[in-house]
Amino acid sequence: MQSRIVEVRQGILKKNDLLAHGLRQRFEAANLFAVNLVSSPGAGKTTFLQATLTALHAHCRVAALVGDLATERDAERLARSGAPVRQIVTGTVCHLEAEMVGSALADWDLAALDFLFIENVGNLVCPASYDLGENLRVVLLSVTEGEDKPLKYPTIFSGADLAILTKMDIAEAVGFDREEALRNIQEVRPGLEVLETSARSGLGMGAWLAKLKDLKDTRDLKD
Amino acid sequence: MQSRIVEVRQGILKKNDLLAHGLRQRFEAANLFAVNLVSSPGAGKTTFLQATLTALHAHCRVAALVGDLATERDAERLARSGAPVRQIVTGTVCHLEAEMVGSALADWDLAALDFLFIENVGNLVCPASYDLGENLRVVLLSVTEGEDKPLKYPTIFSGADLAILTKMDIAEAVGFDREEALRNIQEVRPGLEVLETSARSGLGMGAWLAKLKDLKDTRDLKD
Repeated sequence: MQSRIVEVRQGILKKNDLLAHGLRQRFEAANLFAVNLVSSPGAGKTTFLQATLTALHAHCRVAALVGDLATERDAERLARSGAPVRQIVTGTVCHLEAEMVGSALADWDLAALDFLFIENVGNLVCPASYDLGENLRVVLLSVTEGEDKPLKYPTIFSGADLAILTKMDIAEAVGFDREEALRNIQEVRPGLEVLETSARSGLGMGAWLAKLKDLKDTRDLKD
Repeated sequence: MQSRIVEVRQGILKKNDLLAHGLRQRFEAANLFAVNLVSSPGAGKTTFLQATLTALHAHCRVAALVGDLATERDAERLARSGAPVRQIVTGTVCHLEAEMVGSALADWDLAALDFLFIENVGNLVCPASYDLGENLRVVLLSVTEGEDKPLKYPTIFSGADLAILTKMDIAEAVGFDREEALRNIQEVRPGLEVLETSARSGLGMGAWLAKLKDLKDTRDLKD
């Protein structure tokens, strides 16, 4: 039984990797920079993304996909930014897959976009294994979750390209130990860049937006 | 491919249900009351459980199993209560299964225990599908996660026997809307009892301990 499960799982991941490769090629051909946001439920992905879309929408062409087991709530919240947003409802599936992203984008003109944000299902485990063709994978960690999370969920931190600490405005109120959190992130993923933000107070949002543009410009120059 | 995946998944769940049934029979024969704690990463399961074990350890025989992808940290934290604790390291598996619980308990004398607490992997999706033979499944929701989580992760809330709001001491600081959270819980699981707690301030912990003893007494009388 066990070997058959492993075989089916490997088959799923292999198929996903092929589809993700195809998506990445489409994104590059369209000069589109794609970002995959992963975190626990409640880490503040939607609030962070809403602030990001609102800021970028003024001078860039941005869009978002958002994955949830149920409800269209996040798509409704994100659409307030003025950017086009589409919800992917996964049912009981605990992560987004490249195939879901491909289907959701089927009738979109990617060449008309500069940035695409993909908000994954809230889960610190399962999304780690599924490449969505993104150019940047960002893991968000809120100050309320505990400084030990990188050590306890190492796969998702070691597979990320950037870490973002969220809700920094309440760091003191919840007794967040910043040094320990940073040390734990470096332990599982040495050299990972970490930005400290609060979508509510605006802290660090400028640095994040500048970082995004830098990364896109660097990628575009390479093409 | 898709039908084969579904078939393998059904096979796994069927095997798990059989093993869970066996565990439940062992728990009842030993007069042991087993509690399965599920929540997001960082919702405060370990702190809540540490307070619970410390309070119960004075006059009951209690023990705990704790599941994580990596590290023995939670077992070390929980062992400070004086209760026997064992860590289950799941590697990349996003939930506990009945087989893991059975293996971890293999050399324990269950008749020497009154309560067993099983702290699941932090995940609001995957643990919902895996019965561990528990007598009570408790879903914890912290005030920092957002009031919409029951609507976005309905399976885990609808499969719970009790909901616990954690970190109520910082509810005001994070702008928690208690009425909305309670309304959303009732929407996905009408009639579900909800306890409001703070392991830090002690709020609601007495009601939780009384509830546990009540439930165990009721179960024991039925046997």
